[in-house]
Amino acid sequence: MTQENQDPSVPPACNSVVNSAAYCNGVRVAYVPVADLEDAWKHSDRFLWVGLYEPSEQLLSHIQKAFGLHDLAIEDAHNAHQRPKLEVYDDSMFVVIRTARLADSGEHRMEFGETHVFYGPRYIITVRHGSLTSHIGLRNRCEARPQLLAKGEGFVLHAVMDFIVDQYFPVLDALQNELDELEDAIFSGKFVRSVTARLYHLRRDLLALKQAVTPLIDVSSHLTRMSSNLLPADTRPYFQDVHDHVIRIADLIDNLQQLSHSALEANLALISVAQNDDTKRLAAWAAILAVPTMIAGLYGMNFKYMPETEWAFGYPMAIAIMLGTCCFLYRWFRKVGWL
Amino acid sequence: MTQENQDPSVPPACNSVVNSAAYCNGVRVAYVPVADLEDAWKHSDRFLWVGLYEPSEQLLSHIQKAFGLHDLAIEDAHNAHQRPKLEVYDDSMFVVIRTARLADSGEHRMEFGETHVFYGPRYIITVRHGSLTSHIGLRNRCEARPQLLAKGEGFVLHAVMDFIVDQYFPVLDALQNELDELEDAIFSGKFVRSVTARLYHLRRDLLALKQAVTPLIDVSSHLTRMSSNLLPADTRPYFQDVHDHVIRIADLIDNLQQLSHSALEANLALISVAQNDDTKRLAAWAAILAVPTMIAGLYGMNFKYMPETEWAFGYPMAIAIMLGTCCFLYRWFRKVGWL
Amino acid sequence: MTQENQDPSVPPACNSVVNSAAYCNGVRVAYVPVADLEDAWKHSDRFLWVGLYEPSEQLLSHIQKAFGLHDLAIEDAHNAHQRPKLEVYDDSMFVVIRTARLADSGEHRMEFGETHVFYGPRYIITVRHGSLTSHIGLRNRCEARPQLLAKGEGFVLHAVMDFIVDQYFPVLDALQNELDELEDAIFSGKFVRSVTARLYHLRRDLLALKQAVTPLIDVSSHLTRMSSNLLPADTRPYFQDVHDHVIRIADLIDNLQQLSHSALEANLALISVAQNDDTKRLAAWAAILAVPTMIAGLYGMNFKYMPETEWAFGYPMAIAIMLGTCCFLYRWFRKVGWL
Amino acid sequence: MTQENQDPSVPPACNSVVNSAAYCNGVRVAYVPVADLEDAWKHSDRFLWVGLYEPSEQLLSHIQKAFGLHDLAIEDAHNAHQRPKLEVYDDSMFVVIRTARLADSGEHRMEFGETHVFYGPRYIITVRHGSLTSHIGLRNRCEARPQLLAKGEGFVLHAVMDFIVDQYFPVLDALQNELDELEDAIFSGKFVRSVTARLYHLRRDLLALKQAVTPLIDVSSHLTRMSSNLLPADTRPYFQDVHDHVIRIADLIDNLQQLSHSALEANLALISVAQNDDTKRLAAWAAILAVPTMIAGLYGMNFKYMPETEWAFGYPMAIAIMLGTCCFLYRWFRKVGWL
Amino acid sequence: MTQENQDPSVPPACNSVVNSAAYCNGVRVAYVPVADLEDAWKHSDRFLWVGLYEPSEQLLSHIQKAFGLHDLAIEDAHNAHQRPKLEVYDDSMFVVIRTARLADSGEHRMEFGETHVFYGPRYIITVRHGSLTSHIGLRNRCEARPQLLAKGEGFVLHAVMDFIVDQYFPVLDALQNELDELEDAIFSGKFVRSVTARLYHLRRDLLALKQAVTPLIDVSSHLTRMSSNLLPADTRPYFQDVHDHVIRIADLIDNLQQLSHSALEANLALISVAQNDDTKRLAAWAAILAVPTMIAGLYGMNFKYMPETEWAFGYPMAIAIMLGTCCFLYRWFRKVGWL
Repeated sequence: MTQENQDPSVPPACNSVVNSAAYCNGVRVAYVPVADLEDAWKHSDRFLWVGLYEPSEQLLSHIQKAFGLHDLAIEDAHNAHQRPKLEVYDDSMFVVIRTARLADSGEHRMEFGETHVFYGPRYIITVRHGSLTSHIGLRNRCEARPQLLAKGEGFVLHAVMDFIVDQYFPVLDALQNELDELEDAIFSGKFVRSVTARLYHLRRDLLALKQAVTPLIDVSSHLTRMSSNLLPADTRPYFQDVHDHVIRIADLIDNLQQLSHSALEANLALISVAQNDDTKRLAAWAAILAVPTMIAGLYGMNFKYMPETEWAFGYPMAIAIMLGTCCFLYRWFRKVGWL
Repeated sequence: MTQENQDPSVPPACNSVVNSAAYCNGVRVAYVPVADLEDAWKHSDRFLWVGLYEPSEQLLSHIQKAFGLHDLAIEDAHNAHQRPKLEVYDDSMFVVIRTARLADSGEHRMEFGETHVFYGPRYIITVRHGSLTSHIGLRNRCEARPQLLAKGEGFVLHAVMDFIVDQYFPVLDALQNELDELEDAIFSGKFVRSVTARLYHLRRDLLALKQAVTPLIDVSSHLTRMSSNLLPADTRPYFQDVHDHVIRIADLIDNLQQLSHSALEANLALISVAQNDDTKRLAAWAAILAVPTMIAGLYGMNFKYMPETEWAFGYPMAIAIMLGTCCFLYRWFRKVGWL
Repeated sequence: MTQENQDPSVPPACNSVVNSAAYCNGVRVAYVPVADLEDAWKHSDRFLWVGLYEPSEQLLSHIQKAFGLHDLAIEDAHNAHQRPKLEVYDDSMFVVIRTARLADSGEHRMEFGETHVFYGPRYIITVRHGSLTSHIGLRNRCEARPQLLAKGEGFVLHAVMDFIVDQYFPVLDALQNELDELEDAIFSGKFVRSVTARLYHLRRDLLALKQAVTPLIDVSSHLTRMSSNLLPADTRPYFQDVHDHVIRIADLIDNLQQLSHSALEANLALISVAQNDDTKRLAAWAAILAVPTMIAGLYGMNFKYMPETEWAFGYPMAIAIMLGTCCFLYRWFRKVGWL
Repeated sequence: MTQENQDPSVPPACNSVVNSAAYCNGVRVAYVPVADLEDAWKHSDRFLWVGLYEPSEQLLSHIQKAFGLHDLAIEDAHNAHQRPKLEVYDDSMFVVIRTARLADSGEHRMEFGETHVFYGPRYIITVRHGSLTSHIGLRNRCEARPQLLAKGEGFVLHAVMDFIVDQYFPVLDALQNELDELEDAIFSGKFVRSVTARLYHLRRDLLALKQAVTPLIDVSSHLTRMSSNLLPADTRPYFQDVHDHVIRIADLIDNLQQLSHSALEANLALISVAQNDDTKRLAAWAAILAVPTMIAGLYGMNFKYMPETEWAFGYPMAIAIMLGTCCFLYRWFRKVGWL
Repeated sequence: MTQENQDPSVPPACNSVVNSAAYCNGVRVAYVPVADLEDAWKHSDRFLWVGLYEPSEQLLSHIQKAFGLHDLAIEDAHNAHQRPKLEVYDDSMFVVIRTARLADSGEHRMEFGETHVFYGPRYIITVRHGSLTSHIGLRNRCEARPQLLAKGEGFVLHAVMDFIVDQYFPVLDALQNELDELEDAIFSGKFVRSVTARLYHLRRDLLALKQAVTPLIDVSSHLTRMSSNLLPADTRPYFQDVHDHVIRIADLIDNLQQLSHSALEANLALISVAQNDDTKRLAAWAAILAVPTMIAGLYGMNFKYMPETEWAFGYPMAIAIMLGTCCFLYRWFRKVGWL
């Protein structure tokens, strides 16, 4: 218990067994040291729930021997960087799920972790990799509902998956907020570089999320349709519920992906519109300035016989012509919408 | 009855039971208070049609106990934000449909709501969330056709779905009109920012609609092919009809999505064409103004021996050359299409 | 007969029964008034072929009673705007096909119509909506091949579908011609607005055609694989032939869609290339004009001691320098390809 | 034999029977005139291989009667413009394959033709349309391998398909070369119009090829999985081989399509980069020229009291300031990369 | 053994038999010359593992005769340029896998090779084409695990596939690094041509990789589900492991493809933003320079009566006006963000 109550943001480096307990009728009845796991599993009808964090190879071999787990599953559980998957063996299952959470720094960047689950009759072993959020909350929540926990390891598997899947929603909310901010920036007409860069990073995050979630659809659908006796039939609606959540997450990601692409296209179109507007404005002002310059040049010519230069009111007249032309041009450009 | 006749745009905050009645042979025979629902269902052969609006958790538990509904369905019915789906249990079904309507403000923005339906032998319970359009019209229409209503709860389920699905058509008409207006704006050559922004919002709305409608295809198709005895066989052509409508809505959305994308591309191309035209026009006018400026500069030089400046007709000649060059350039630019 | 021989472009407003005849051994044996249809069908072994144009509700109810048609099919047949589909009932089928033809005005704009077919043992009823092209030619062509017409209503169904599907080819030819013209316009370097607008309308037309044709693939494929005794087995290769045509039309539409998209992208790329070329040309001419202007400004300065201005050949020398610089710049810009 | 040895690029206009021979144990035993085909087929155990080129309707009817072919297949064989397909009848098959070759003119433009094959027990009839490459080489190659030819008409069908499919590879090589040339042109920075036009035509060719090849995947896959006794089981690996080739061709086309799209996008991006660079260069030179022009204008002012104009070194000083500013600006623009 | 220990980057030109050995109980028991392969296979229960490098036709025919391999597989094994595939014959399999590695030159360009495997009871023959990386490491690694090697040829097939598939990961890491570098270049705002060219080549490499890997998914999935007795059931989890790796590689490629496309779009958007910024800056400076030029032109006019020119402080006043206007404009442009 005490091990689990430590600060969850510090990975338990020295000891990778986060918790290991036996449950009977939905109530935790004993703490089981790793050395006694095999005995506790084989010689009682209690079910065991073991939580590990980045275990060493030695610890995993010990666990493997205790529950007779498959070589390849143990190899996978030791190396992170697995794709979410569900391996069904004769009398056990191996589930890999990726976890996602927002990094503590404020840039909406995500941290991915992995949770591997060994599941068999009367035992469930969870192995966390990289994910800083521990499962304390989860275990407490399960223990608070003994009538459900009494259903055994199938319910715990559902609870673990539900817990991890629900962590995707705040991540998606944050990305949705980021997109909303970007939309505002785009349609307010500020085409700064950071908007494009943020859109790109948003799309990269969405791609990473999608790759974490898409294989989960198959995993949860498989668990829903599974006709093995590893999972009691009455847990199926619960896995169907997880499956619905995963589908909704995939839908949300898809939606955000398409919206962010539309936003990028809108951004490009608006940059073009702005460029067009600026070109017109530039052209209009250039014309307004060019005309008096040309008239001034005209009266700057050194011809001997230029009647206007002799007139008393030649100079004010020239200034008047210049001002008049500029005013006329200004009004005309306003009318045609170039200014 | 009176509760249902209130202004439909004001959600019944105090009382979430909109209506609760028993029907026999297609005719409403009694108002059934919530407290009596269990008795009325178990001890008679009438079928019950209960309409709720955003019910409290207490009310839902009561309903759950009365009809023996599944925990997870009740949990879903309490929380909105479900994806359209159909859950088939042993002796009941749970259907989630999303409703869509145009907001009252004139911006063609949509409001989504949800209708959840619990359906079983001799009962149908509808739970509305967020959707302001009540089902009064629906109930009145059903009661006006007692020969169909006599077919029982299967017909009511069809009527609810048909009612909700048909509400998508005016929404799509409004979006189609919006796109028609945008097309006119685009091809009239006004590349204002609002066109791009409106196209973006149109596409966002279409995306939201698509996410509401796409899962309905599976739901309606499932209801059409269902071989359970929950739905009488003679209702199948009616669900096939709903399915046809859903498919047509999905087709229309798809069409609008592709058209709006084509419109965005056409918009971008036309902006480029306009920019190209404006650049040419700008260049042409710059050239027309630059030439007399250069000639004026020429005769503004202070060389002692410049024969032209001594001539009596030097000044008019210079003016004539300037005007001539300008005219020539103007005509030439017109000919090559730059002006 | 006389009703059918009227000008096909004027819809028969007063009388919506275009033709109604009984056939025996491939030969038309009698005109059957609508009132006698039920008797003629039930009490003889002739098959009936009835052609309607936008019938009234009354007429449709009469037909429904005569042949025992399904409510929903009759409702669909009264309302146009159906999606192409095939409904198979116990002893009858209902087929909806969309027709397409070019509008008489020269803009390659299409008109869509609908043909609904009620088909059952010894009867076939066609209901046209909106489509101005009558089926006279079709009936005449069928009656000219009595050995095939003798195969009964299955052959007529094939003939109707074949007739409608073949009308898509001239429409596609016209769109292909339009695209060829647009290609020429694009690659000739004229980036006028109309090209983009025409490309957009071409793509809109293709989208509309695709939505009319795509569901037909399922309809014709279903008719080919149908194992009901509604369709004699020896008509299957004929429906396979219709299916092949529909697939080819869908292929052609797909091809045109992708080509028109490529053409739009090529258009955009060429506009960019042209803009780039024009910018360079503009820059080159600006430079050529700016240099003499600058030199002229130089000698327009009012310094007391400017040796060149005192020279006898100062002025021609200045002109020579200006011309020389311009010539040099002109050649250099030609060499680097900016002019 | 002599008919087949003529120049293959000239279609045999007068006589459309290219060859017609009977084979026994893999050896050609007799030339069979068209008139005797029926007898030769029915009254011997030799198999017949007939090659036709754009046959007349009369000839086709004769062939139809001789081998009892289906009306619709004969109709298809008379009209070209079929989609590749495989029709399986009770005791025969009809295969349509499109042929592709490069036109003799050097523009990498393709010519499509069609080969239709009627195939049944002890006969195979090939009908060529439009394709100028005759099958002589094919027949010679088959006759050179009597041990394989002895396997009968199944082997000939494989040989025909293999022969046609292999003709796609040189076409694809030519298109790959074209793309390589275009890549070089794009990345060398020459954004001439022809590059875009050639890319467009390349994509159009690829689209046409894809439409010719894609349906072949189904045809060859069907032949591989076919459980009819029309094809001996030991030919299946051979059709699997054809299928592998078709899949590889489809892969290559797909690859070229995606590469050509990437090349178009790269082209657009590089045009934008170039435009950006040219705009900067233009701006830099405009600034360098504008500064001395402004200074010259300054000293061109006609104020009475302008001390500098009275100085002996006023003029050289002004020139020095101008040159100095220009040099400074030039260096500065080089440093920031605008020049 | 000695043959295998030569420098792996030099293909064994003279002798294409890299190794040929017999194994018993997981231990290499004998070197088997090619001439004795048939005897060694037929008359003992050892399994044979033969490694060839670009074998001659003669050698392949010898091998074919020794193990009774299929003609078409031998033909494929002689020609490289096959698509990855799995051919299952009655008592043998033929597997084609493409290998990928980075070229030694530093440009991240890939070299593809092929490994063909003939697999049957008690023999496995690997044929390498083009791939310079020999399988020495592989054979050593297998021989170091005799308990696994004792499982026979199924384990060797798994080891070969695992070895080749794992070589894709460093290639993908290199491409990921390339993309990271390109991202940095793009968002640092340097729109040099090389970025676009490198992005294009990255996408071309990814396309090539995808075409090598995609068919492997089917191959590995087929091996996992295979119900033939060619593969012992206990090797299935191992092929599942290979399948997982292939899927992960395909995922990574897909991810990189989408990211590189997003990067290209971001690049285009940023070029447009930069162009817009540069246009504004250009316009601002042009305006700042144009105003004093115009004022100077004004006082350069030669009117007799221009009061300002007579003033003692006319000149400094003009200069002051010019400087004032420029300062004002500069500040104003800074404020609106154009400078």
